[in-house]
Amino acid sequence: MSLSNLDLINECDAFPYYQVDPDHYAASINTYYELRVEDHDYAVGYMLPSVAEVFRGIPHWSIDDNERILTLAGGSNVEERSAAVETTLLAMRTTGHFKVLEKWRDELYPVYGRNKELLFNVERSASPLLGVVTYGVHLTAYLRTTEGEIKIWIPRRVYNKQTYGGMLDNAVAGGIASGEGPFESLVRECSEEASLSEVIVRSKAKACGTVTYFYIRDEKAGGETRLLQPECQYIYDLELPDDVIPKPGDDEVEEFYLWSVDEVKEAMAKGEFKPNCALVMLDFFVRHGILTCENEKDYIEIASRLHRKLEFPTP
Amino acid sequence: MSLSNLDLINECDAFPYYQVDPDHYAASINTYYELRVEDHDYAVGYMLPSVAEVFRGIPHWSIDDNERILTLAGGSNVEERSAAVETTLLAMRTTGHFKVLEKWRDELYPVYGRNKELLFNVERSASPLLGVVTYGVHLTAYLRTTEGEIKIWIPRRVYNKQTYGGMLDNAVAGGIASGEGPFESLVRECSEEASLSEVIVRSKAKACGTVTYFYIRDEKAGGETRLLQPECQYIYDLELPDDVIPKPGDDEVEEFYLWSVDEVKEAMAKGEFKPNCALVMLDFFVRHGILTCENEKDYIEIASRLHRKLEFPTP
Repeated sequence: MSLSNLDLINECDAFPYYQVDPDHYAASINTYYELRVEDHDYAVGYMLPSVAEVFRGIPHWSIDDNERILTLAGGSNVEERSAAVETTLLAMRTTGHFKVLEKWRDELYPVYGRNKELLFNVERSASPLLGVVTYGVHLTAYLRTTEGEIKIWIPRRVYNKQTYGGMLDNAVAGGIASGEGPFESLVRECSEEASLSEVIVRSKAKACGTVTYFYIRDEKAGGETRLLQPECQYIYDLELPDDVIPKPGDDEVEEFYLWSVDEVKEAMAKGEFKPNCALVMLDFFVRHGILTCENEKDYIEIASRLHRKLEFPTP
Repeated sequence: MSLSNLDLINECDAFPYYQVDPDHYAASINTYYELRVEDHDYAVGYMLPSVAEVFRGIPHWSIDDNERILTLAGGSNVEERSAAVETTLLAMRTTGHFKVLEKWRDELYPVYGRNKELLFNVERSASPLLGVVTYGVHLTAYLRTTEGEIKIWIPRRVYNKQTYGGMLDNAVAGGIASGEGPFESLVRECSEEASLSEVIVRSKAKACGTVTYFYIRDEKAGGETRLLQPECQYIYDLELPDDVIPKPGDDEVEEFYLWSVDEVKEAMAKGEFKPNCALVMLDFFVRHGILTCENEKDYIEIASRLHRKLEFPTP
């Protein structure tokens, strides 16, 4: 197996594009239900019909099969809506309706409206059921050799991790909980996942944009497949001095490798990276002049696809 | 007048998005004609009806008013199609149909198909009539002071230039002619526009991705307004040593300023930059950690909008 960089993008940014084929897009959209919040006439997520069906008849929810819309009608503010969502999901967890809820994290993710306002919070493990946008931070740690060559710190996820076990990752990556700022989330994750000190991160980590994509979950993600997962990752670069070595700080990382760009590319082509982490590497390669229009035939397509404009509001 | 960064994006990337409002998008699309090439069942550009109308009854062209498609039917290969396009446009220039053709450049721009193949070439000044994607290179030249501060070289276009006269620009920017590679085009433009030596450019200019957007031309662009102009700019950074000073190399640049980031931001907010050059500055600010999610409320939107996935094929 040798995957092209565009193959890697297609694996992670799998939801169709209207621009490419309007008919295929429309046919695809029509297989989903829109998730809406009462008094807000736009979608905040797409749900599988088999998932939306489970919300039928439950207090706080109304379903319109003609328009294919599931509406959260319980509450007029963040607290009330979030409570309605939690009550519903806790009940579904008890009845064992969804495998993804077995990984209940007790961590809340935010869902935003078109005025960048928080609409409600939802338990992290349930976000792919609702198909809402989730947010994270991904950091690439690297160093420059005295010859000017870039070498990149690449962790391998522990083999027994239930999601993407044994796959390669970005140096630091994590979800942003509701109420937490991206940079503060980054500082915390750098300490937890790579034993990188707050001083180093605050002084040297550089914000470099976002990577956005629309993922469709498969077996490797765990739980139900085909769930829709639009994501926005805040991207950071961290150029480390030679004597700062990332080390596993929790039980999520097996070990860190210090690899040349060619070694990273080779592992990417073999499909060894967690899908969204491969995209973060591609973004790094584009920004650092490693991928160019001369050596990458899909350069323009890749630059756009790494920054998908999502269908749903973002903060 | 104080423009937000998102205002600057909206000015340059003005074509509606399906994702934001499908009905508005559909209504907008329905005011245009698709430009197609015979035996290729997809659009390579969007044209105003008033422009498509002028092609009615001309040899090599067929128009379908029901489907709103103008088809280039003259020729089965690049040479034949390009000749048909040239013959048509030369005749239209002679008859004075279009103001944009008064700026005939004798420079050919490429139009590509879905297999990245060249379909035909078109005279540069006519490309906005056909609404096809055009390609360019934009380079930001900057230096770092001993305190680590970034200062940016900003040229002002000569005041009597008919397009965007007197506005601020990127250090080097130019269109890529058919058959020319982006980097070779950059080397040429760096010499012509900023008197930067080939040695400096080849050794220090770094590819940093693309900026793509869908512009709708206004008075400042010259010629007919409301013409559609989807564009892809290959982006380069060039960190210059203190002693290399860009100088106007042709009659297009009035003078170069060496500005702090704050001075650049201020001029952007005043609308002093040529619209697409403001986008290139925003992309630079995002990649260099100058704009962050903490100081820019539209951070996610901006990162996506700088990398629009265009409706038409690109190479």
